[in-house]
Amino acid sequence: MAAVSGGSDSVGLLFLLHGLHTRGDVVLDAVAHLNHQIRPEADADERFCAELATRLKVPFIAAHIDVPARALAEKRSLEVAAREARRAFLTQVADERGANAVATAHTQDDQAETLLLRIARGTGLRGLGGIAPVRDGRIRPLLELCRAELQQELRDRGEPWREDATNADLSNPRNRVRHELLPYLQQHFNPSVVRSLTRLADLARTDDVWMAEAAASAAKQVVTVAAGEVRLDCRALQALPGALARRVVQHALETVSGGAAAGFEDVETVRAVAFGAQPAAQVSGARVEHSAGSVVLIGKGHIAPQKDWFRVDLPIPGTVRVAGTSWQLEAVGPQTRLPGSVWSASNFQVEVDAANVGSHFVVRSRRAGDLFQPLGMSGRKKVQDVFVDRKVNRNDRDSVPIVTDVPGRIVWVAGHVLGAEFRVTEHTNAVIILKLRRI
Amino acid sequence: MAAVSGGSDSVGLLFLLHGLHTRGDVVLDAVAHLNHQIRPEADADERFCAELATRLKVPFIAAHIDVPARALAEKRSLEVAAREARRAFLTQVADERGANAVATAHTQDDQAETLLLRIARGTGLRGLGGIAPVRDGRIRPLLELCRAELQQELRDRGEPWREDATNADLSNPRNRVRHELLPYLQQHFNPSVVRSLTRLADLARTDDVWMAEAAASAAKQVVTVAAGEVRLDCRALQALPGALARRVVQHALETVSGGAAAGFEDVETVRAVAFGAQPAAQVSGARVEHSAGSVVLIGKGHIAPQKDWFRVDLPIPGTVRVAGTSWQLEAVGPQTRLPGSVWSASNFQVEVDAANVGSHFVVRSRRAGDLFQPLGMSGRKKVQDVFVDRKVNRNDRDSVPIVTDVPGRIVWVAGHVLGAEFRVTEHTNAVIILKLRRI
Repeated sequence: MAAVSGGSDSVGLLFLLHGLHTRGDVVLDAVAHLNHQIRPEADADERFCAELATRLKVPFIAAHIDVPARALAEKRSLEVAAREARRAFLTQVADERGANAVATAHTQDDQAETLLLRIARGTGLRGLGGIAPVRDGRIRPLLELCRAELQQELRDRGEPWREDATNADLSNPRNRVRHELLPYLQQHFNPSVVRSLTRLADLARTDDVWMAEAAASAAKQVVTVAAGEVRLDCRALQALPGALARRVVQHALETVSGGAAAGFEDVETVRAVAFGAQPAAQVSGARVEHSAGSVVLIGKGHIAPQKDWFRVDLPIPGTVRVAGTSWQLEAVGPQTRLPGSVWSASNFQVEVDAANVGSHFVVRSRRAGDLFQPLGMSGRKKVQDVFVDRKVNRNDRDSVPIVTDVPGRIVWVAGHVLGAEFRVTEHTNAVIILKLRRI
Repeated sequence: MAAVSGGSDSVGLLFLLHGLHTRGDVVLDAVAHLNHQIRPEADADERFCAELATRLKVPFIAAHIDVPARALAEKRSLEVAAREARRAFLTQVADERGANAVATAHTQDDQAETLLLRIARGTGLRGLGGIAPVRDGRIRPLLELCRAELQQELRDRGEPWREDATNADLSNPRNRVRHELLPYLQQHFNPSVVRSLTRLADLARTDDVWMAEAAASAAKQVVTVAAGEVRLDCRALQALPGALARRVVQHALETVSGGAAAGFEDVETVRAVAFGAQPAAQVSGARVEHSAGSVVLIGKGHIAPQKDWFRVDLPIPGTVRVAGTSWQLEAVGPQTRLPGSVWSASNFQVEVDAANVGSHFVVRSRRAGDLFQPLGMSGRKKVQDVFVDRKVNRNDRDSVPIVTDVPGRIVWVAGHVLGAEFRVTEHTNAVIILKLRRI
């Protein structure tokens, strides 16, 4: 599914995906458009998108949300309210249609702008990762392309797009970055600054993914989660290198505060209590106390589900140890399906159709809202419900490896259920064997 | 030893160190001033510094170098030639006087400027670390202070400083950052942007130190160094997470090219050869070839000594495993020196005077030029010569842990020789015991 506003980026995205669709490389299920009702041109934008989708013979889905009214009611900025409305709309439509991914039109320029905004406002390594190419059901196929290239391509094809007059409004910080800061840096420091910034984002994201895994693994020695509170063992925390200790504390704070992002000062405050520099403190999401060799974070009872405790790529073929768990996963193949070989699955080994899988798998921990179609069922089901049905102990659920493909579709809830789309059928030529092992 | 130019930052530094000297917390051995002969005011600056040092009763050491002539002869920019001349001068003087550290006057503002310059020009995580508080015999005690605070302090004391007119020259990129970019960011995005940037530098430095250690450890499974070439095992390299693989390749390239920094493109080229995407390539410092399951980097025969293969803090008390080696180090104490206890040392255990040591030790691999005064000798000696004298195998020298104090003075060439300054004497009240173990 493609999210299309009518601007040059999203119109470029639509043509790209439509080309792939025509060649049979992807299925373009629908064009989704949210009419924010912010600008007088909003209805004309919607008509433009509707006509384009009709011409390309792709189903068009639009919704109207009075974002200005909602922003006023919720006392939020127009930008934040619009982003939130868009996010909810796209997730809902994708879910209803069973779309595997929503493609959005972020470009290299958007990435550079995001990085500069975050650097100017203050960020750590996590924020420097910028916009991820694939995350939470969103894919950004244009992240390696720049806006000028896209616009030239559309001009060459004679395809128009809609200009958004509010893009020139410098009171919006992103517009100020786009129209002032980036051109200034290009002129005085580095004509390729957009490329330099997007490369920094790529490097930071790679580094951060790996450190998050290492921290999750280290956390198992440090953190205990109990009703309404999280405990960190002070000695174990002190023994960690600073880079890991900060991340373990950050994750613990986010767990106890129900998922709200933890800032640098709060992390340092918790570490100060752990190091005995002060006996107790109040941070934004929790009360921090020193008690019997532990630092205790006491929240308001809303402990967040641990999200992405681990996340690691599994090459094909290849083997990974899942950090912080006792599991190892191996992908064997792709190999020709042997004549007479039938579909086989055990708790610890499954075969999947190689044609439905890309270059590698992603192995991650469960997330709230994880949804897929289990083999042998007609509709979609929550991973959470699979755990309940199969009586998986609540404390063990975070350790179950979820194997997905690159766009994020669930291939295997490892040790439990295979995703129906990946099953071996009579048309299967090559298979990949997934093996789960305790180590 | 303090490096003093006469500007507000270095004059502030001098008064700070002189205050600590008067209280007996440090020994301020000398004021060093390099007359670059760039500006007409250079001689007046030197007289100003000389008078200040005389008034504070600190030895004054100056040198005159015709930097403009040197820049012309070496075809380098004035800034680069001046920096190089300053570096060589300070190292030489510190070495001649046996100073433990050279203090330079970098402030929080310098750190923020450095970060913005690097971000604008293109950098990865290593560059984001900015100016290190302690490195290679340099200490920067002002890195947490801002320039405005320092200047106010000097005004309050009625102490003048020298203004450098070239600071206003916007053709110098750093001045453009200082006078245009930083004020612009403060006005439009974040009044505390200096604080945000210095915090990012701190976080990036912590993260990078730890990842460099992990990469050094991982490299032991991947890299083989032989005469004129470095080999990386392709399978082992592919099995590493991207963050580690990049660092291992980067370090290998820097080893084969005699220490020249390896850029992003070169690292990616080597990885492309390792992944079989291309058979061979030429990068800036080396020829890259695929051969029998390895990627081979062939340089011009100047293999750099491995620098800081490992580097880790050793808390007091505390224990660290030295990544990439089979060594573990433990610091016990501080504890009262027992009556009748005599100075004792074995290859694997030494006692040091706790009064000469700060909050923690640093354990790192050897570096070219490492110099210290071994116990029982009157002068300074190269660590390299200790290894030769003691017949330490050439291949084992990189694995020997060098224990230093926080400013970088060598406490113990672990398993070999204690630094004379740290020995236990009749005046010692408390000792710290250092233990080396094979694991």
